[in-house]
Amino acid sequence: MPRLVVFLLGFGIGLAGDATHVASGTTAYDWDGVPTLWNSAIWFPFVVGLAVLGAAEAGRRLDLPARARTRIDVVIGAAVVLALYALTATLRDQPATVSVVLCGAIAVAVWAWWGPTTRSLAVAAGAAILGPVAEMGVVASGAAHYASDSDSLGGVAPWLPCLYFAAGAVASGVLGPLTGARAASKPLTTTG
Amino acid sequence: MPRLVVFLLGFGIGLAGDATHVASGTTAYDWDGVPTLWNSAIWFPFVVGLAVLGAAEAGRRLDLPARARTRIDVVIGAAVVLALYALTATLRDQPATVSVVLCGAIAVAVWAWWGPTTRSLAVAAGAAILGPVAEMGVVASGAAHYASDSDSLGGVAPWLPCLYFAAGAVASGVLGPLTGARAASKPLTTTG
Amino acid sequence: MPRLVVFLLGFGIGLAGDATHVASGTTAYDWDGVPTLWNSAIWFPFVVGLAVLGAAEAGRRLDLPARARTRIDVVIGAAVVLALYALTATLRDQPATVSVVLCGAIAVAVWAWWGPTTRSLAVAAGAAILGPVAEMGVVASGAAHYASDSDSLGGVAPWLPCLYFAAGAVASGVLGPLTGARAASKPLTTTG
Repeated sequence: MPRLVVFLLGFGIGLAGDATHVASGTTAYDWDGVPTLWNSAIWFPFVVGLAVLGAAEAGRRLDLPARARTRIDVVIGAAVVLALYALTATLRDQPATVSVVLCGAIAVAVWAWWGPTTRSLAVAAGAAILGPVAEMGVVASGAAHYASDSDSLGGVAPWLPCLYFAAGAVASGVLGPLTGARAASKPLTTTG
Repeated sequence: MPRLVVFLLGFGIGLAGDATHVASGTTAYDWDGVPTLWNSAIWFPFVVGLAVLGAAEAGRRLDLPARARTRIDVVIGAAVVLALYALTATLRDQPATVSVVLCGAIAVAVWAWWGPTTRSLAVAAGAAILGPVAEMGVVASGAAHYASDSDSLGGVAPWLPCLYFAAGAVASGVLGPLTGARAASKPLTTTG
Repeated sequence: MPRLVVFLLGFGIGLAGDATHVASGTTAYDWDGVPTLWNSAIWFPFVVGLAVLGAAEAGRRLDLPARARTRIDVVIGAAVVLALYALTATLRDQPATVSVVLCGAIAVAVWAWWGPTTRSLAVAAGAAILGPVAEMGVVASGAAHYASDSDSLGGVAPWLPCLYFAAGAVASGVLGPLTGARAASKPLTTTG
């Protein structure tokens, strides 16, 4: 998929997902005077788009995806990640144990469904670390904060690594060649 | 699949899904003296069954499904739509931004998984418009109403188009020939 | 998959899932002096591991799985069951109609996706009966109890059979031979 499309996909998911977090009060922006786009500070969707592009580039250098994907596969992957993003906006009143196990199990299923290789696991794990650490930096800078019921992981939400894990897993496989037909998304070798 | 089975499938999903909406207080019936079935006014599941049959008929005239489905595919599709229906019953306390993004992302994933063609998109989009408009008519007639926290889309719930979209996408592909074996649900042309 | 791995899989899912139930207050242990592991009484994950092994053994004797699965299929199945387990921990404030229809629809989808045979249905249905009955025995013994908003099925939660159904469906297919490649998880006969 072209890099611009990958960036725009990340931009759109970041924008819509962040809108759910702000609407639910899970997160809030704290700097005055920053222009907003939907519910986000203007810089947020650009950063997410670039981060998704970075994960996709990392995947491409690792020869991902291991099998060709179709445009429709990418639509499903993006929709599932956005659904998980929105789901996290509904978890403010849940204990961390519940939200982390729920989002973690979904994230593992997304990785295993999308492209279960050690290399995509590496990209997903990298995203699960770097993403929350970067958000801790944002929180420390005073630009934004998580609600007091959702900030137990160094100022960010405890389920945040799970969301980045799922997003990183899917992103790692979107820069390879896409095939036009669904049939071609299957392994090229078949048994029997 | 036979038309009677399609009608009964819609009847059953409408009955069970509506039971969750009434139980959660998302919707309520307002006319006295109408017999009830489970939690619904007696006419509701019949209307849903006919609507599903209509979407299925529209899909058949558009030569859907694009690839043959199995009975099991239909079971999965129906179960996923019912799960989304029941999920909407849990969203009363969520901001519209959260519920719409969540249900919208799931609906897109359902469409893309089930049968991602422009024609099924047309049927799904038609259902997403006609269904809520019809329900607005029901609300305007005084026969039923949505809870005050779930009526921001002209008297109906803001996520309602997403639910109809997913249901329409699946319904559009159920009147074609079913194949008995799972293998045959795959494209007839394979690569390699 | 080796029996020890199946046992450990059940052990782990039981441990993590039960942690969500205890954290949400859905269930509580009542006997003092029993050692705990994470949030569970120490015996709980062992019992779940053995129960999963029993369901797997029942499936193996019924010649399940009907088609070979990969390790990744098992990862997805286990993750989905754990996600459903954690989802039930978020349903305390939902009417039984909502929680049962939601979990029931997901459980049917899991069965149909994982291995839709009459034999796996039998194992799943057996689990859906025996599991809750066993938990009713635990409750009657005074070792544990469900919260008063989640005990309407003879002392256990009304959605509990759905969770056991999904777990039983997946468990019924994990003791057969696994294939190493994803391609081989498909039917050995192909059309065209």
